[in-house]
Amino acid sequence: MKVAALAGGVGGAKLVDGISRLNGAPEMTVIVNTGDDFSLFGLWISPDLDTVCYNLAGLENQATGWGRDQESWETFQEIQALGGPDWFQLGGKDLATHLERTRRLGAGQPLSQITADFCKAWGVQSAVIPMSDDPVPTLVETDQGILTFQEYFVKLGCEPEVKGFEFHNVEKSRPAPGVLDAIQAADLVLICPSNPWVSIDPILAVPGIRSALGSKTVLGVSPIICGEAVKGPAAKMYREMGIQPSAGAVAAHYGDLLDGFVIDDLDRDLQEDILSAWNGSLTLFHTNIWMKTRADRVAVAENIIAVGSSLVKEV
Amino acid sequence: MKVAALAGGVGGAKLVDGISRLNGAPEMTVIVNTGDDFSLFGLWISPDLDTVCYNLAGLENQATGWGRDQESWETFQEIQALGGPDWFQLGGKDLATHLERTRRLGAGQPLSQITADFCKAWGVQSAVIPMSDDPVPTLVETDQGILTFQEYFVKLGCEPEVKGFEFHNVEKSRPAPGVLDAIQAADLVLICPSNPWVSIDPILAVPGIRSALGSKTVLGVSPIICGEAVKGPAAKMYREMGIQPSAGAVAAHYGDLLDGFVIDDLDRDLQEDILSAWNGSLTLFHTNIWMKTRADRVAVAENIIAVGSSLVKEV
Repeated sequence: MKVAALAGGVGGAKLVDGISRLNGAPEMTVIVNTGDDFSLFGLWISPDLDTVCYNLAGLENQATGWGRDQESWETFQEIQALGGPDWFQLGGKDLATHLERTRRLGAGQPLSQITADFCKAWGVQSAVIPMSDDPVPTLVETDQGILTFQEYFVKLGCEPEVKGFEFHNVEKSRPAPGVLDAIQAADLVLICPSNPWVSIDPILAVPGIRSALGSKTVLGVSPIICGEAVKGPAAKMYREMGIQPSAGAVAAHYGDLLDGFVIDDLDRDLQEDILSAWNGSLTLFHTNIWMKTRADRVAVAENIIAVGSSLVKEV
Repeated sequence: MKVAALAGGVGGAKLVDGISRLNGAPEMTVIVNTGDDFSLFGLWISPDLDTVCYNLAGLENQATGWGRDQESWETFQEIQALGGPDWFQLGGKDLATHLERTRRLGAGQPLSQITADFCKAWGVQSAVIPMSDDPVPTLVETDQGILTFQEYFVKLGCEPEVKGFEFHNVEKSRPAPGVLDAIQAADLVLICPSNPWVSIDPILAVPGIRSALGSKTVLGVSPIICGEAVKGPAAKMYREMGIQPSAGAVAAHYGDLLDGFVIDDLDRDLQEDILSAWNGSLTLFHTNIWMKTRADRVAVAENIIAVGSSLVKEV
């Protein structure tokens, strides 16, 4: 089975890492949100892309899910000593990624090529592709005005109340080379348990990607369990957008893009409500999807791939 | 006594550090070459400026004279793992300087202001000013073509044969704020034992600086002892420019800019030759000017300031 997975940061990274470590792992291409990308200290930083790559390489900080393991902080401390901005933590190993990426972007190389080369150097087996080589910065419309994503997410700790999102210049962007091919070639397209508003929607907004999914078997995995996001501001965003956060709200968010949707066993009571509210055909699954430990990732991945296989046969 | 010192990297940094640590140290402004400045990984790097500041702050690597003490190399090693360029060593603490400088330059702040703020954070007592806030990159004309300074100096290890130098855009540059004032206010202008071709000449080429020296008492210190440069390619450059390297060649290089010139005791036999070749008035001194240890810096500084005081009284 060939899988194309749409992913944001930590949640998506954990699942695709689990899948990549399955016995008989499917051939997988991970298409990653780059709406979070931003510039700091003159460096081009791609947080979701790095989180996915570090996890797939086994290099990630296991406590946080993002950043590098056994990280060094000398540079960051010296920046603080100089009175520089310290709201975005930059570890020494992680910095190397940003420095070399910035150098290569400056030399005219596309982000997708750089990412492929980095993955090779890190020993990543799966293909990892940014959604686009064109910058598509996510802007968050809030009660404190329009904020860049990292200002909202890291600097202000998701405190401002969200009113909407803009994927700036997305209409002019193109999918990175390999994105549409990977979707076309996939038996199963997986929408990872990532934030629908700011991780998956930016990918779907790149012209050509949503329509490419139309003919595919698409399985979504809920990032919301028991009405709360496993990680990050997804549930808070739903509330501020006037929607009760739930696995069902996520399914409704993706709508007829989905052929199947996976909720956690803890949410199994929601099945009837989700299906009764649904217009069209949806195959709903419940299984354990909560990845707390590194071992959980493989177990959850096994569940998801089993569900995906049955969905592929069914559709 | 007020001193304005013109300095390049390690040699100049050692002397001004020695001066700053004298009992009853004179009020000193160090005007630093920025012709070596360059961009790497998107960062703006000012090697001579950093060397002077790190030495004055007591933060320098004492083995090399440049870079930071107790440096960390995680980032550099990770860059190597990614196949990035590793010809310019970037330590973790040093990186913070480049990152925060790049950020502030990007925000429109002038290099002189940034340098002053960094010096304050590092506890540097002397004033340190870049020769100009405008980029004036030194280009080295060689048998391998025109090279940027760091390509010549670090990447190619000064191997190419030098044919000449260009201080690119220097005619459009202006002295940084405070440079001309410091020269005007100085009782003594010190030309540090730095490379005449690529450390001092770029400073003198900034419009207004050479002419400001005309009315001042100027004391040069030879960077060449016994026909060889204490450090760096100065002697090699003299040979390739068709001039026998010697303390006398350095004095001749600066010509009537000098009121006094200091050679090492080891070169005292050259005195007669230097003076007989000299057109005009020059007060020649010999003393120990070779700074091998940190303690040597203060001893040499004491010699230089004694010589400078007598020159100021004499002129």
